[in-house]
Amino acid sequence: MENSKVDTADITADVVISQEALLNHWQGHRRLTRKAIEAFPEKELFDFSIGGMRPFSQLIMEIAGISATGLSGVVSGNWITLGELHGLREKMPATKKELLKMWDEITVQLDSLWPEVTVDRFQETVLAFRQWEGTVCSMILYWIDNEIHHRAQGFVYLRALGIEPPAFWDRS
Amino acid sequence: MENSKVDTADITADVVISQEALLNHWQGHRRLTRKAIEAFPEKELFDFSIGGMRPFSQLIMEIAGISATGLSGVVSGNWITLGELHGLREKMPATKKELLKMWDEITVQLDSLWPEVTVDRFQETVLAFRQWEGTVCSMILYWIDNEIHHRAQGFVYLRALGIEPPAFWDRS
Repeated sequence: MENSKVDTADITADVVISQEALLNHWQGHRRLTRKAIEAFPEKELFDFSIGGMRPFSQLIMEIAGISATGLSGVVSGNWITLGELHGLREKMPATKKELLKMWDEITVQLDSLWPEVTVDRFQETVLAFRQWEGTVCSMILYWIDNEIHHRAQGFVYLRALGIEPPAFWDRS
Repeated sequence: MENSKVDTADITADVVISQEALLNHWQGHRRLTRKAIEAFPEKELFDFSIGGMRPFSQLIMEIAGISATGLSGVVSGNWITLGELHGLREKMPATKKELLKMWDEITVQLDSLWPEVTVDRFQETVLAFRQWEGTVCSMILYWIDNEIHHRAQGFVYLRALGIEPPAFWDRS
């Protein structure tokens, strides 16, 4: 009895972020990024930029490519290379509508793959995209950070275009 | 014997992100933000902006204010109000050197306060800045996200000024 009581407490106590919370965190960010895509005018989504940076659609292709192939890499152990990841840019949809459709397909894919990552794997070291070494947890955090980073650049593009970006705090 | 074996495995298995890893993640982002501050020319740090947004120094004051008072709010239960948080802008240092000094003091403060957050508190619901309700974990993630978001806007400012921002992946 004494043993099981202590053990349950320890298990709860060690959870800083649960696996479910991390997926919700990621998908919440993805919902906000989707709203940023929607906020762009069709033309400027594909051609507006500041300071020689990539248009927002190209930043979105980077984020989408990492999300789609990264989590399947974690689950299957089969990673595409960085070169193949960059090559996904060539599959850029031609319209905002198609870009959003691609985005939504990845949303479903992530929800579907997530339960296949057993919780012990988050501390396992992987070589993501056969290039970046780190724990599964650190990789997924990095991908989310990268999405926040590039989306924020899109927010500046929107402001420069005189368009109010979606609210940063609203992940619904 | 059988019990303790299972229990140890379960405790390890439930850790998606450890408390120590989350602090390292945060401080790694703070090191990158520090490099972004350093990359700005003195004048433009305080007056350059795009699309009516705040200069980078003001974004930094927001991030610094949240970091400095947020974690002490978690630890002590005493939160300043949102109004008081915004009022911290008035304490804006006049030079880049002083801004960096303030930043470094907060770095030490966070390292010092972090062990005072017992691990069970990460799932506790708080009313941060007497305004935002959520778990301690979700609040800290939100503060980190907010830092990534505003720093990325500073990266666009740097690009627009013809300055190469620090490498996003380098958190050393």
